Amino acid sequence: MSELTIKGKNSKAASAVLSKLKTTEKNRILLKVAENLVKNSSYILEKNAMDIQNARKAEIKESLIDRLLLTEERIAGMASGLTQISDLDDPVGEVLYMKERPNGLKIGKKRVPFGVIGIIYESRPNVTIDAFGLCFKTSNAVILRGGKEAINSNIALVNIVQNTLEEMDLPREIIQIVEDTSRETANEMMKLNQYLDLLIPRGGAGLIQAVVNNSTVPVIETGIGNCHIYVDKSADLDMAVKIADNAKTHRTGVCNAAEKLLVHKDVADEFLPRIFEVYTAKEVEIRGDEELKPFSDNIVAATDEDWSTEYLDMIIGVKIVDSLEEAIDHINLYGTGHSEAIVTDSYKNSQKFLDEVDAAAVYVNASTRFTDGEEFGFGAEIGISTQKLHARGPMGLEELTSTKYIIFGNGQIR
Amino acid sequence: MSELTIKGKNSKAASAVLSKLKTTEKNRILLKVAENLVKNSSYILEKNAMDIQNARKAEIKESLIDRLLLTEERIAGMASGLTQISDLDDPVGEVLYMKERPNGLKIGKKRVPFGVIGIIYESRPNVTIDAFGLCFKTSNAVILRGGKEAINSNIALVNIVQNTLEEMDLPREIIQIVEDTSRETANEMMKLNQYLDLLIPRGGAGLIQAVVNNSTVPVIETGIGNCHIYVDKSADLDMAVKIADNAKTHRTGVCNAAEKLLVHKDVADEFLPRIFEVYTAKEVEIRGDEELKPFSDNIVAATDEDWSTEYLDMIIGVKIVDSLEEAIDHINLYGTGHSEAIVTDSYKNSQKFLDEVDAAAVYVNASTRFTDGEEFGFGAEIGISTQKLHARGPMGLEELTSTKYIIFGNGQIR
Repeated sequence: MSELTIKGKNSKAASAVLSKLKTTEKNRILLKVAENLVKNSSYILEKNAMDIQNARKAEIKESLIDRLLLTEERIAGMASGLTQISDLDDPVGEVLYMKERPNGLKIGKKRVPFGVIGIIYESRPNVTIDAFGLCFKTSNAVILRGGKEAINSNIALVNIVQNTLEEMDLPREIIQIVEDTSRETANEMMKLNQYLDLLIPRGGAGLIQAVVNNSTVPVIETGIGNCHIYVDKSADLDMAVKIADNAKTHRTGVCNAAEKLLVHKDVADEFLPRIFEVYTAKEVEIRGDEELKPFSDNIVAATDEDWSTEYLDMIIGVKIVDSLEEAIDHINLYGTGHSEAIVTDSYKNSQKFLDEVDAAAVYVNASTRFTDGEEFGFGAEIGISTQKLHARGPMGLEELTSTKYIIFGNGQIR
Repeated sequence: MSELTIKGKNSKAASAVLSKLKTTEKNRILLKVAENLVKNSSYILEKNAMDIQNARKAEIKESLIDRLLLTEERIAGMASGLTQISDLDDPVGEVLYMKERPNGLKIGKKRVPFGVIGIIYESRPNVTIDAFGLCFKTSNAVILRGGKEAINSNIALVNIVQNTLEEMDLPREIIQIVEDTSRETANEMMKLNQYLDLLIPRGGAGLIQAVVNNSTVPVIETGIGNCHIYVDKSADLDMAVKIADNAKTHRTGVCNAAEKLLVHKDVADEFLPRIFEVYTAKEVEIRGDEELKPFSDNIVAATDEDWSTEYLDMIIGVKIVDSLEEAIDHINLYGTGHSEAIVTDSYKNSQKFLDEVDAAAVYVNASTRFTDGEEFGFGAEIGISTQKLHARGPMGLEELTSTKYIIFGNGQIR
């Protein structure tokens, strides 16, 4: 049997034990893991140093090394994340409704764990603890397959969680990490239907597409955001400048940052010089067509590819549109269905935009940067779904649960 | 471009038009299609006769030919199905909740159509009209890929729907049927991620497994039911006989029929002779191990494969278990996660069974035959999901919708 088949089998067994834990027990364990992470900081940092050393040897760029790097502070951050998760309501066991049928059957719909969740991710080791916390709180066993750059850090973190589980008389296999980080194990995981109830990819567009295209395990697609701000002709332009600025520049490496700005032709003359001044001051590269030339000397010519690109950088694609309809069509054609915003004072246009834009989160007069589990009030987030099945938008604890029908009878037959 | 790529593109365009229709317009069209089906009965029957003739030539067995066969009555049945769907509440547009965040953002979660749904199914032509009705009511365009045995009937039915849509000034491509019924088109459909938001297989275990194993489009797995009745030691045995009889013999070809009977050893002596008498009178074949021999002369030896088989026939696998725990373990090991029932008068055992059996529908003291959209009060059903993502159990109109977040701001930035 392969590493993954064995791990799958063990996860399934562990999930049966996990499913019987009460919320208070789960919370106690989350707090204990938080404590043990901090207590074992030096061990974690030692293992992390190996990853950093390997990364430098491989001449990986500094921004990626920073993602990989752990510090006392970052470890404390992971621990406090677990404490926060322990404070959240446990969705498992909630009966969403129960109704009595005319024949006397009482039919209820109850939230239950998925069972075993697989997570494929890239270099950030904090995902290891995040994913454990969210899956554990929802009584799901988890199999992690992180990037090879972080493998020493990840193994160390998982070790600490497993030791804590063992201390509490629980199976270590509630969390497992795939130690072989070859592409083959990722591919094998995508076909592990026998043991995995769900697979969540977290990382860049390449990783997510690979998982979506190859996985036969049910997948939740997360995180690619080619988000647009559309400035309507009736927009309050002061507000539009603030939103277009914030959505692009507040943080560039995140999926809810704006990558494109669409501007109605009737307000282009007034609006574009104002926002370009802001962007230029912040060194945002502006890409667009000839039409933008009159408004700035620093326009980089856009290619067709630009309109569908998630830059995750201080770059924005800007386009003048003739109408709201053109803006909606453009967004539905090039967008990734993540977060889209209109700035408008027209009631009719706001309604049309909300109705017709096909995305996980559609905004009127607010920055796309709010598409986030904490900002939405969920307390924590495993990712932002851009697919339509099961979950769409920020996914909190509830999205990590399934349901089952429970039926109380007294001898009913058909 | 292949037939499917063209159809996919056209579906996507049609779904944008469809998404703007109001509920009253959709209902009017459903009723009009119902009317036109009845009006065109002779045309449908003529095309159906071609399929029947081909089936006889191919020496297909009578039970399958019966599934294929249309009559005036069955066409009227399809039409009345559409009328029923027109009477159901439209889930699209419902805002499930809206809450105000501390920063004043109003965040609401709204039901929206998926967009384009693909359905791969076998020989029953009524699925064509059923699937259209449910998808149309939820504003989803649909691409159908039925079995080759029913292709003439299916094309005729789709034609009538398309003509009606055209009469009402709507795009014909709201419903499309794949005319090439080769295995290749089914496989191509499973990879049509660019255009399909969801794929639902309807049919036998072979078809469903093929779709689950090969599709990269999000799938909802439906319908395989290796369902168990467990007779606990505290069961009311009169009730247990009625339930074990009904669940097995009421209808055998359906996924919620019982395929296995587990009996606690303490009541085996009293219960088995009674239920075997019923089964023998109805010519149900009983499969099991040596242990059953004392209770009947007609036991067929069970192989290991029997325990995981969905017979869909007058056959039942019977096993004596030592404990509730053994019953639960057996069900979780061999079951397909469809419908499972315990007959018991023990409060503790009923709770344990409900908690620990991992299935879409878990029953206490009732027949598994109730796992059905109409019996659950949903009014209609596109299938019964045995997966945990998105939908589990009978799927009505709500399960054919996704959601999006709509956010009302007044200039919020982060």
